[in-house]
Amino acid sequence: MKVTVLSGGVGGARFTRGLLAHLRMPDVGRGRPSEVTVIANTGDDLWLHGVRVCPDLDTLMYTLGGVVHEEQGWGRRGESSHMAADLAGYDVGGDWFTLGDLDLATHLARTQLLREGLPLSQVTERLCRRWQPGAHLLPMSDQEVETHVVVDGPDGGEQLMHFEEWWVRHRAAPAARRFVQVGLDTASAGPGVLAAVLDADVVILPPSNPVVSVGTILAVPGVRAALEATTAPVVGISPIVGGAAVRGMADQCLRAIGVETSAAAVARHYGRRAEGGVLDAWLVDTVDAGAAAELAADGWRVGVAPTLMTDVPATARIAAAALALVLG
Amino acid sequence: MKVTVLSGGVGGARFTRGLLAHLRMPDVGRGRPSEVTVIANTGDDLWLHGVRVCPDLDTLMYTLGGVVHEEQGWGRRGESSHMAADLAGYDVGGDWFTLGDLDLATHLARTQLLREGLPLSQVTERLCRRWQPGAHLLPMSDQEVETHVVVDGPDGGEQLMHFEEWWVRHRAAPAARRFVQVGLDTASAGPGVLAAVLDADVVILPPSNPVVSVGTILAVPGVRAALEATTAPVVGISPIVGGAAVRGMADQCLRAIGVETSAAAVARHYGRRAEGGVLDAWLVDTVDAGAAAELAADGWRVGVAPTLMTDVPATARIAAAALALVLG
Repeated sequence: MKVTVLSGGVGGARFTRGLLAHLRMPDVGRGRPSEVTVIANTGDDLWLHGVRVCPDLDTLMYTLGGVVHEEQGWGRRGESSHMAADLAGYDVGGDWFTLGDLDLATHLARTQLLREGLPLSQVTERLCRRWQPGAHLLPMSDQEVETHVVVDGPDGGEQLMHFEEWWVRHRAAPAARRFVQVGLDTASAGPGVLAAVLDADVVILPPSNPVVSVGTILAVPGVRAALEATTAPVVGISPIVGGAAVRGMADQCLRAIGVETSAAAVARHYGRRAEGGVLDAWLVDTVDAGAAAELAADGWRVGVAPTLMTDVPATARIAAAALALVLG
Repeated sequence: MKVTVLSGGVGGARFTRGLLAHLRMPDVGRGRPSEVTVIANTGDDLWLHGVRVCPDLDTLMYTLGGVVHEEQGWGRRGESSHMAADLAGYDVGGDWFTLGDLDLATHLARTQLLREGLPLSQVTERLCRRWQPGAHLLPMSDQEVETHVVVDGPDGGEQLMHFEEWWVRHRAAPAARRFVQVGLDTASAGPGVLAAVLDADVVILPPSNPVVSVGTILAVPGVRAALEATTAPVVGISPIVGGAAVRGMADQCLRAIGVETSAAAVARHYGRRAEGGVLDAWLVDTVDAGAAAELAADGWRVGVAPTLMTDVPATARIAAAALALVLG
């Protein structure tokens, strides 16, 4: 069984780890070996101090490779910050972004390989040889695409800010007018990305940020069309539970695009494939049974289950519920 | 009094530290404030894992800034290697070069500023704001010049190897046929470099490697001509004591260019200005009194003094002896 996941960072990585745990269970798949492909958002990538940082790819690698800092959700377990503490002495800025010593090894290896001329997809494959994530990790694009946030400028005009600067440095405080994916116009889907959607047996939108993670992947030329064309069912898991983002600041992102922070509103934002959207089914948390009923009344296929990814077994059950919703 | 030093890494840095200590003494200069400019070899610079490393500039900054790893002679005191230990897990090579966590902060700050478009001279000035080296630190050139070693290839032919790879990774073991400065043809002297020679009151060739450190600086277009034209006396301190390099593997470098490893041979290699060379005077160690007599018989102005830079006061005395030789 081929499963394809469109993922951002922490939420998507944790979900995929649960999905892999579920698929490894002896009674799953009835003898059909499963193969998981993760299409990762690279819109958060940035050049920092001359090295290329790919937050979502790294979080996926570390989480699936078993070396993530568990409480934090990103970065390496046992991390230190000798370099960063010293770099502050040079006063060259950029210190709002955490660059741990171990994490930096990833950025340096990646930057070296990129400078040698390898595309990001091959660089990612090379880095994954070390971490053995148990899934194919595909950057959404080999071209540089960077999400920027349009915020109020000092003169009442507009100002562009890299998404990571808005998110990490300013904790999403400046009101976002909209998001702009710089480079997206001329970008194309990375090698294997469209095929992973078209040839899948099931496609999953995990509880990642629907605007700047999954939304950015969907905006890559060809991806939305592949989702429309694939014979695989597409199931999503709501990142909104009880009217709030489970993690991160998805509400600030949703507000910017005029979408209410609710499980039902995000479903309608994605839309049903039957009506030109990308979803066949939607899994919401048990606290959102009301939203489920409302969507079902409108003809949606909706599942209800506990969706808090408190640990790997709980997350495996969420993955099982999502798969059951479309595969029966 | 304006003093200009043409320096490589460890030897030149230690000498300059002693020179600064000497010039700070109350009875020196008779009220004339002194100003020291160091023209640093950048031929050892390299791109490693996507960041720019400048070994000699760093050694000068750390040594003059008081943060060098004293026993080692290069790198930072209190250094750690968390990043490097982890990077080895990616198997991308380059692990023959030590990249300490603190040292890496310098490389990242430098790479960021270079990528922002600043020339190396301005980047160096910026980094020196932190370390306050007490001397003007000038890269010999703003263009990338990289010393390569021509060694025997596997097929009996020739093979090019970056100097740092030959020196650090292979401990200068493969016989060097010759040295090639890649990029030198199109390089020009960095801002202030020629003026620092032309306007100096005294120019010093410290006990740096005469082939790949001082030799490379001398090969930068205009530098040798400036040394010929300057009204300042030029004094050198022999890096060879008792027929051996005090530090490093200068003998392997001298052999490649057909120069004997002796205090007299290096002096003749540099040559007297009166005869088209670059030196007015030459300071040798007390164990090389024989070489001094031989050179003096040929009309050289030669000084004899203990030249082992065992500590800062001893090095200050060497600087004093060198200055006394040409300034009286």
